[in-house]
Amino acid sequence: MKKAPARKAPGGKPAARKVPAKKAAAKARTKSALAVSPLAPKKFAKLPPLAGVDLGTAAAGIKYKGRDDVLVIRLPEGTTAAGVFTTSKTASAPVDLCRTNIRGGSGRIVVVNSGNSNAFTGRRGVATVEATVVAAARAAGSMASEVYVASTGVIGQAMDPKPLIDGMATALFNADEDQWDRAARAIMTTDTYRKLATRKVEIDGSTVTINGIAKGSGMIAPDMATMLAFVVTDAAIAAPLLQTLISQGADRSFNATSVDSDTSTSDTLLLFATGAAMKNQTNISSVIDPRLAAFRAALEDLLLDLAHQVVRDGEGATKFVSIAVSGAESTSAARRIGLAIANSPLVKTAIAGEDANWGRIVMAVGKSGEAADRDRLAIRIGGVDVAALGEAVPGYNEAPVARHMKGKDIDIEVDVGIGSGTATVWTCDLTHGYISINADYRS
Amino acid sequence: MKKAPARKAPGGKPAARKVPAKKAAAKARTKSALAVSPLAPKKFAKLPPLAGVDLGTAAAGIKYKGRDDVLVIRLPEGTTAAGVFTTSKTASAPVDLCRTNIRGGSGRIVVVNSGNSNAFTGRRGVATVEATVVAAARAAGSMASEVYVASTGVIGQAMDPKPLIDGMATALFNADEDQWDRAARAIMTTDTYRKLATRKVEIDGSTVTINGIAKGSGMIAPDMATMLAFVVTDAAIAAPLLQTLISQGADRSFNATSVDSDTSTSDTLLLFATGAAMKNQTNISSVIDPRLAAFRAALEDLLLDLAHQVVRDGEGATKFVSIAVSGAESTSAARRIGLAIANSPLVKTAIAGEDANWGRIVMAVGKSGEAADRDRLAIRIGGVDVAALGEAVPGYNEAPVARHMKGKDIDIEVDVGIGSGTATVWTCDLTHGYISINADYRS
Repeated sequence: MKKAPARKAPGGKPAARKVPAKKAAAKARTKSALAVSPLAPKKFAKLPPLAGVDLGTAAAGIKYKGRDDVLVIRLPEGTTAAGVFTTSKTASAPVDLCRTNIRGGSGRIVVVNSGNSNAFTGRRGVATVEATVVAAARAAGSMASEVYVASTGVIGQAMDPKPLIDGMATALFNADEDQWDRAARAIMTTDTYRKLATRKVEIDGSTVTINGIAKGSGMIAPDMATMLAFVVTDAAIAAPLLQTLISQGADRSFNATSVDSDTSTSDTLLLFATGAAMKNQTNISSVIDPRLAAFRAALEDLLLDLAHQVVRDGEGATKFVSIAVSGAESTSAARRIGLAIANSPLVKTAIAGEDANWGRIVMAVGKSGEAADRDRLAIRIGGVDVAALGEAVPGYNEAPVARHMKGKDIDIEVDVGIGSGTATVWTCDLTHGYISINADYRS
Repeated sequence: MKKAPARKAPGGKPAARKVPAKKAAAKARTKSALAVSPLAPKKFAKLPPLAGVDLGTAAAGIKYKGRDDVLVIRLPEGTTAAGVFTTSKTASAPVDLCRTNIRGGSGRIVVVNSGNSNAFTGRRGVATVEATVVAAARAAGSMASEVYVASTGVIGQAMDPKPLIDGMATALFNADEDQWDRAARAIMTTDTYRKLATRKVEIDGSTVTINGIAKGSGMIAPDMATMLAFVVTDAAIAAPLLQTLISQGADRSFNATSVDSDTSTSDTLLLFATGAAMKNQTNISSVIDPRLAAFRAALEDLLLDLAHQVVRDGEGATKFVSIAVSGAESTSAARRIGLAIANSPLVKTAIAGEDANWGRIVMAVGKSGEAADRDRLAIRIGGVDVAALGEAVPGYNEAPVARHMKGKDIDIEVDVGIGSGTATVWTCDLTHGYISINADYRS
């Protein structure tokens, strides 16, 4: 609840400051920024094969040595496609390609590389994408408009097409249906763990599967909240409906998360539907089709799972933070208030310091620009009312709140006292680890 | 230019990472977060007395022990007043008061305290302000509408009016014209040095003085970019014109700076004009009055000086960063692009790491949402072209750029290739010191 004391009394000596034992432990934890995130899942999802969906990886040496850095996903004929991309005004050449091709609604091959994002690489970057498309279409026996390219890594470094195309050939040679785990590893950059999720749904007697992989750990903010995510299902869904599903699903998952408020030039979320598990049924093509509800719920659940995995791998993260906003003017106002809290460095450092500093939450609500009634604002932390009717709850029980702040999962609820708009967003804390990863790595 | 390498090879052990010597030095520097900012001015401005403007301070023990925490500024009859305040939707009770009273355009007394911001304190907070106003108006022999109150410190802690009012009485008892330096110290919170500036201008044979003090080091972002600043001149300027001058001046100074993108609930910039130095002249009341130009230039220069001092005391700052944007659609577009760069954690950590990572600048331009031509974007760092026509300048000389990044003053120029809008904004780097101050202070 307290602000930092004056670091130096006027005219006096710098005040001595002790680091208590529990802080020392927290520091040690954040120092190990290069180790696997303490918020990593205990075990990784095992993704089942999807008929006709072949995945292959290769170590092409685009930047990393001795690890896979190319992924190819080959999709059967008739696969529908949809996608959501970064809103950046300086999007990469691969994003430009995907945005164009997604309009055709069809997908046969996805080529992904890590190590170089081919962003801000001028005409040469466009040429690299074009050469990749030609080679991939030939390899997949598809049209150029059915090829998708995604690149993640350094910005502004010219990317030679040859290693990528050679890597693609190797990856295709090795491709089979059972390489989801390798695939998730090949697309990592500063990620400390791979991200996988899978769901099964019954649709009129057919068992349908949805598999997804993602990568991302910094530069994570709406819109999009991940750098790269690829989701494939064997359901049969028409492309226009698939686009509706992914757009709405992204809003409630990736676009409701933020690690550091920065937006990548390369953010790409692609969703493909092969139809292989619904051979005896017609395509689902309408939002009012009764077969859609269960699928949609499973897809949204999977997207949220992947988005949370990305946040839990936020650079330097030691805590996973849920922020539920209610009482806002509208859903979008609630989301903007939530993201203002999620993106506030002062809120995020307070959480890193295990400090239930709700004053900073008030500040963040105020800066969001959305309507809020200062004198009706209420805040709950870990389920305990700490502020209500515009001031601290007199004599609230600090012990359970302090215990909650020491945990890995922090729950914040804010009611701004205006209307009925609600939204939940997710973020992580801001620690020494984030600074170490992003400031200290140059030799 | 490089992104962080994968912290952990898939399936492998965490990669070993060495901290080179110069990094160790940088770390040591940022670790001393409690010491005076390395960007502090070499010497402090000595502010001359202004006739009839009495300043007094007192140690009221509102939060800090053994230091002044109350400031009173008593102004002569006929003093005009203008001000700019936080845009926060959860502004503090003192800000509400100032916003109301500034409409009257007249000022006789300012009561300031540090240690408690009286923000989010509900009805009791409003009552504290009202009691302070009654006491201050009585003490100054003024109307209630000529009283201004400003509070800075903890949010959400009820503030008893008694210590403040007692402190005010003591401060008034001690007040005289020559206490600007003590005044600047009394309003500090996490500031590591006091902020003062003064200018002199000739206006038709009269020598006019402008004195200003400011405080602020975290929670610094438009609008406003400082928590508190008080400027007094002995020029004679009508209140409506004074308001125009401070609004425009703030836009080009405090509102063009950012430390951490967070916006205080208490930001207050007040400007008073006593007229004492222009007794034989008429008031300046029109923007086209030829006497105004020199005064306006001096005022804007002083505001910029104070705003820069605030940024140089940004929590944990080790580098002062100027970002000049050109080629934007409009002035406001240029400012928004500049602030997107200034507020990007990835840009700010790269600067802390002395890394000329212009890829992150491209990312920040893209996320601003303003029009930019990816293929005409140009970036200069320390006067050297590093990117042009949408890609890296082939073989640019890295040595002078690397030298520049090691300095304390970092100059970034960005042309976005669209129009003729220009703006300059200022920020500081994001270091371990910021995290230490904001996350590690709780015992």
